[in-house]
Amino acid sequence: MSNKCDVQSRRIDTGFRLTRVGVTGVRKPVRIKRDEDIALINDTLNCTIDVFVDLPAEQRGSHLSRNLEVLGEVVNESVRSPVSGIETLAVNICRKLLDRHEYADTADVMIIAEYFRNNKTPIGRDTLEVHTLVGEASAVRGKGLLKTLGVEVIGMTACPCAQETVGNALDCKGSVAVMSHNQRNICTVSVTMEENVNIEANDLIDIVELSFSSPTYEILKRDDEAAVVINAHNNPKFVEDVVRDVLKRIVEKYWDLPDEVFLTVRSESEESIHKHNAFAEIQTTLGSLRGSR
Amino acid sequence: MSNKCDVQSRRIDTGFRLTRVGVTGVRKPVRIKRDEDIALINDTLNCTIDVFVDLPAEQRGSHLSRNLEVLGEVVNESVRSPVSGIETLAVNICRKLLDRHEYADTADVMIIAEYFRNNKTPIGRDTLEVHTLVGEASAVRGKGLLKTLGVEVIGMTACPCAQETVGNALDCKGSVAVMSHNQRNICTVSVTMEENVNIEANDLIDIVELSFSSPTYEILKRDDEAAVVINAHNNPKFVEDVVRDVLKRIVEKYWDLPDEVFLTVRSESEESIHKHNAFAEIQTTLGSLRGSR
Amino acid sequence: MSNKCDVQSRRIDTGFRLTRVGVTGVRKPVRIKRDEDIALINDTLNCTIDVFVDLPAEQRGSHLSRNLEVLGEVVNESVRSPVSGIETLAVNICRKLLDRHEYADTADVMIIAEYFRNNKTPIGRDTLEVHTLVGEASAVRGKGLLKTLGVEVIGMTACPCAQETVGNALDCKGSVAVMSHNQRNICTVSVTMEENVNIEANDLIDIVELSFSSPTYEILKRDDEAAVVINAHNNPKFVEDVVRDVLKRIVEKYWDLPDEVFLTVRSESEESIHKHNAFAEIQTTLGSLRGSR
Amino acid sequence: MSNKCDVQSRRIDTGFRLTRVGVTGVRKPVRIKRDEDIALINDTLNCTIDVFVDLPAEQRGSHLSRNLEVLGEVVNESVRSPVSGIETLAVNICRKLLDRHEYADTADVMIIAEYFRNNKTPIGRDTLEVHTLVGEASAVRGKGLLKTLGVEVIGMTACPCAQETVGNALDCKGSVAVMSHNQRNICTVSVTMEENVNIEANDLIDIVELSFSSPTYEILKRDDEAAVVINAHNNPKFVEDVVRDVLKRIVEKYWDLPDEVFLTVRSESEESIHKHNAFAEIQTTLGSLRGSR
Repeated sequence: MSNKCDVQSRRIDTGFRLTRVGVTGVRKPVRIKRDEDIALINDTLNCTIDVFVDLPAEQRGSHLSRNLEVLGEVVNESVRSPVSGIETLAVNICRKLLDRHEYADTADVMIIAEYFRNNKTPIGRDTLEVHTLVGEASAVRGKGLLKTLGVEVIGMTACPCAQETVGNALDCKGSVAVMSHNQRNICTVSVTMEENVNIEANDLIDIVELSFSSPTYEILKRDDEAAVVINAHNNPKFVEDVVRDVLKRIVEKYWDLPDEVFLTVRSESEESIHKHNAFAEIQTTLGSLRGSR
Repeated sequence: MSNKCDVQSRRIDTGFRLTRVGVTGVRKPVRIKRDEDIALINDTLNCTIDVFVDLPAEQRGSHLSRNLEVLGEVVNESVRSPVSGIETLAVNICRKLLDRHEYADTADVMIIAEYFRNNKTPIGRDTLEVHTLVGEASAVRGKGLLKTLGVEVIGMTACPCAQETVGNALDCKGSVAVMSHNQRNICTVSVTMEENVNIEANDLIDIVELSFSSPTYEILKRDDEAAVVINAHNNPKFVEDVVRDVLKRIVEKYWDLPDEVFLTVRSESEESIHKHNAFAEIQTTLGSLRGSR
Repeated sequence: MSNKCDVQSRRIDTGFRLTRVGVTGVRKPVRIKRDEDIALINDTLNCTIDVFVDLPAEQRGSHLSRNLEVLGEVVNESVRSPVSGIETLAVNICRKLLDRHEYADTADVMIIAEYFRNNKTPIGRDTLEVHTLVGEASAVRGKGLLKTLGVEVIGMTACPCAQETVGNALDCKGSVAVMSHNQRNICTVSVTMEENVNIEANDLIDIVELSFSSPTYEILKRDDEAAVVINAHNNPKFVEDVVRDVLKRIVEKYWDLPDEVFLTVRSESEESIHKHNAFAEIQTTLGSLRGSR
Repeated sequence: MSNKCDVQSRRIDTGFRLTRVGVTGVRKPVRIKRDEDIALINDTLNCTIDVFVDLPAEQRGSHLSRNLEVLGEVVNESVRSPVSGIETLAVNICRKLLDRHEYADTADVMIIAEYFRNNKTPIGRDTLEVHTLVGEASAVRGKGLLKTLGVEVIGMTACPCAQETVGNALDCKGSVAVMSHNQRNICTVSVTMEENVNIEANDLIDIVELSFSSPTYEILKRDDEAAVVINAHNNPKFVEDVVRDVLKRIVEKYWDLPDEVFLTVRSESEESIHKHNAFAEIQTTLGSLRGSR
């Protein structure tokens, strides 16, 4: 096929530089490093991947098939040498995109995958829980690269306001087991940092699970179920409380990370008493959090 | 355009009769009859519509554009003469499909729409709640027609097992306010009947709301929120209980409907203590329910 | 209920200011102004609404039920006095949020709704098409307000590269009817502006429909279907072309709007030859577009 | 925890037998047997699992945690001894459900998972494609068991009617490269059979891919892209044609399977010229297909 068929490379007069051009929704299995016993469960992340580069004003189209070639190579490399994390995968792809799209100045990658992890119920039974991982990378040619590691974790919140209001209404405030409404809560944390800064997805998941009214579990026999319900009501949380408790733990855990590390933390409760959700979010830096304490 | 272009009508030798051929996901606004005060809120159903007819073995294709012509006519007619219910709309479309597809023996229609309804909170404040309506019709040429009216309603369940287990664990069983886990529950009821049998969507919604641990509400100030939580915990329900309580009310309410009326009732709880859902379902007839009491 | 039950207002020591706290996924029907003949089809937008305010570091919770009270009032007002546009609705809600949450400095509103519009096929038949509208508003107390109007429109793209490659491969380049792959394309435009600047959703939809290879239609008889296919292949477009053609039309149409007006334009093709999508996006200002011509 | 806490086992007077009670949306990674080279890509299916048993009229609740214990065991067993197929997994779970729920007469299992498979483009380049597998099992105590294997495959259809209409309109009918509209098509096949009958998911995927106008591919350089477009237009298909061509291939391939084998085949085209989809379906038996030839 001759070069005259390269419609994408055609010069155009009336163009505008485009911010992001690429492909979305590519599905790829990627081999990751895991501890031996966890590997027995799953050592592959089934990833949904979006990749983009910018496009100069004078060029008609981006060469989209190059994006898929990059993704194919990354899968093959992961078989020989499993990647250490989803954000590292995003970084590797981001670099390759700038290599292949010589006309591009920026590259952006976003990867989402399910992640299975062993856990213990309150009474100590084994359970296997599923979480969502997000890895991102964003590069400007010649000016460095930022990566993002995110987790989405499902837990439980019990409402502190309803618990107190019910306690008053029933004149049993302070008794051992005052009811409240409780529900599924989805909490997401994402951390954006320089390439040489490193954090672990497992640590972020731990931080989030400790910040719910209670974690949730796949298998709960009766004694475990009672323990989860009691723990949640001893630890009632608004969506605002979940976000702030995640923030406190992040400030403590990552005391040695740079001030410039950027955080987004969200908590969304699928309210049992409403058909809509309650939501809280912060977008901030580690430095700003340190200053506000 | 000459007939020779009617590729769909071509005779084929090696065909198989197809069960259903048509279009899915058509969006249409349809004017419905409502009481005056409710009409102030919304007298239009934004419908998602699927329509199908069968296809004889010897014909290559179904004439799909005729389906859209039928749907366009139904919208125009509803402006002049609002339809009385979503299942009547399905019946009207079903008849027209058999008229237009002269080669078809069967026609099937399914319509889904959101439905807004005024309600009162426990304390008596006004609230507006959204539900989902489903209307279906299914006809065999020369052999009559069945229609289905369905509702999908969101409410709340509190778990009776966890409440008792917690009561024992905290040695406070029988006290006024023992906690449990509670969550959003989605309950769907669908009723299939002859064309001359009539029921009301509002009655089905009422039956479902009475069968939850508590209905849910858009606006709850503190006293209302306490009332909802207390009501739910005084009325703990498994998904199985929700289905059976809907059944009891249906048997009572529709004592005069024929035994052949077919019911599907489902209750699905988005468990606050798990990442998965609990589910119960019955598929049965009114006659069978009457016999089992 | 006494004030001591206002758990949300409690002072806390170790808080962080939260960026956005509120409710998501609230469903509301809102009456809008439409021309007489269109009103026959639908004069109500079924809205999905998210609303947020910020939360000071020293306050434990936001008063979420106030958000629902605001939304209830807006629905009631729209019955008496239909709103002129979805972005105006967002502005009205945004103002009321700052009024009710006296502790908040910022308010954010996002509304999504389906919108039905009459159209004509290439041959001139009547058709009814569904689009999505997005209205947003964002205010900082004492510092003004920005509003956003967005549209999401579905059309069709035919690939210029495959068309040329096929033309070469079959040695029929330049013949009247060279095939290519074509597919559904979803194009979204959103325009952020000061409150006193006004644009029309219908104009944005027109601009997008003109920028596809062809618009798409609900009903197409054979002559119309041929016209759509021929038009699309006479007008092949990459996702990049769709975005840039929207930009050109916006620069022309809105020559008198301020340079500060902010635009996001996206085009996503659900590629018929792949399982993934092609995507292009620009985020820019009117001023920047004017400078780059 | 004493038996008095077994709220589920309580006798009730006014119950109705429920058809299906269980859990939905459980996520589990399951180890499967694969050829050596494919195993390098992925030997784990990330499954979404629904499981149900029936519930006698006189028992209040089903013991839902037993379902999760069964699923946990199946995962652990698959690590030691990978399962041969998703439908075998469903059968194994189904049997265990009847063992654990001694009061149940029926058990139903449904599993969905993504499946990656190597393929070659028309020119012979390597590509990796993602498909969806469905495994089901349904048992009645003492009366045997049926299993179902299903696949969902994405491909491409080009419309034969528009191609002919355009050919006439442009007076170029029969020329080598007449355009048509084309689009993504989703085709699902599911085969229900006795436990001792065995078929392969890879064979079903092959049958479906051969029945599209063309399969689709992740990576297509220009020569491959031209080949896919030309192949698709040389092979135009209605949704009805896709279903019937799958049927023909199934009748040929499975000539030795029993007449009672039950089939559902669906083809849905995400029409590029419309905002809605075209759809065709058959529900039939192998015996009935054989009789109709």
